[in-house]
Amino acid sequence: MPLIVAVDRVVDPEVLRGLCEGVNGIDGVKVGLPAVLRGGLEWASRIAGACSGLRVLDYKLADVEHVMRLTVEPFLESYNVFIAHSFVGAHGALLGLKELLDDRGAKLALVASMSHEGSMEVYDKASPWVEEVIRRVDPWGLIAPATRPSLVRRLRGRFPGKAILSPGVGAQGARPGSALCAGADYEIVGRAIMDSRDPRASAESIVEAQEVALRACR
Amino acid sequence: MPLIVAVDRVVDPEVLRGLCEGVNGIDGVKVGLPAVLRGGLEWASRIAGACSGLRVLDYKLADVEHVMRLTVEPFLESYNVFIAHSFVGAHGALLGLKELLDDRGAKLALVASMSHEGSMEVYDKASPWVEEVIRRVDPWGLIAPATRPSLVRRLRGRFPGKAILSPGVGAQGARPGSALCAGADYEIVGRAIMDSRDPRASAESIVEAQEVALRACR
Repeated sequence: MPLIVAVDRVVDPEVLRGLCEGVNGIDGVKVGLPAVLRGGLEWASRIAGACSGLRVLDYKLADVEHVMRLTVEPFLESYNVFIAHSFVGAHGALLGLKELLDDRGAKLALVASMSHEGSMEVYDKASPWVEEVIRRVDPWGLIAPATRPSLVRRLRGRFPGKAILSPGVGAQGARPGSALCAGADYEIVGRAIMDSRDPRASAESIVEAQEVALRACR
Repeated sequence: MPLIVAVDRVVDPEVLRGLCEGVNGIDGVKVGLPAVLRGGLEWASRIAGACSGLRVLDYKLADVEHVMRLTVEPFLESYNVFIAHSFVGAHGALLGLKELLDDRGAKLALVASMSHEGSMEVYDKASPWVEEVIRRVDPWGLIAPATRPSLVRRLRGRFPGKAILSPGVGAQGARPGSALCAGADYEIVGRAIMDSRDPRASAESIVEAQEVALRACR
């Protein structure tokens, strides 16, 4: 089940529950910082509880160990995947975060590259060192943009055992299935589902498009 | 007035007000993500209001433009400096954030390097590209660790017009005044003041130590 729904604003958890329980193919939810700041901790917990499967907290953490640990602490009961930037390095940062998440049965997903043009200004130029951090920290998963399938393909080759989660499908331009065909395990779709008049129909048509694409590429 | 107080947990705004109004030498407050998540938006606004001068929101933003704009929006009334990571690049990220902040009379401070060991694994190796982003985005200020004065000195030389804010004084090991002597404009101190039994006495002794150090190095 390769679809994760991204929630970027404060929505009724029951709407999400209807999607997650009703649409075959959805395997989780990703919740972003802007929504949590507006909705508060209780909403953040309720929205995560609306989906089984992956419950991904997307703060793109990028701080020292001490601060990242404090940041995730209130969410360890309700979320099971936490996104952080590989860019901040292992020692004094990601290794300590990973240790906390391991202890609490949660998973770490590291950003390996981003979907926007600015990702090529520093992040992608630094990719040999970024990949070294990934090897050192050994996270459960990686975040790589669906908008750049060649990058997904390269990461798939270098990190065969890691889950790859790809945002950028739909509003940001990548077609459903394009990241899966390049080797991703999950595609993350936000606005194309949550801003649609009929989120359920939109989610179903995305799942169908993923299946069509996968049949064609495999 | 070169001291900024870092608030990393939910404290009574009146305690901070007493510090900011009572201690000559304090010129602002920096509030972090863990505290805002626990305290909520209203507390975040009240704690900022307790200090005049710089009111710095420290989320270490590291996302695409769209998400960073949504993240800072609820804080534009109460904060006047926002910290983001230079490594996310200008296009599709920091340029758009800067534009919003300019429009709303707020300032951008870009992380140029960090205080922990992991900063040397990627961030510092990528410093030529990081500095190119800084030149392109042209922020009001830079964040550079007091624990590494040679780095502060280099940034001071390369970016003479930028404010430099240096965390890491006190609990993280740098002595008061060491970053100022290397060319920083502000030193940021958290635990050594806020976790002290007598925050006011601690702040006063740090200001005094800054003055002693500055007299010796200038």
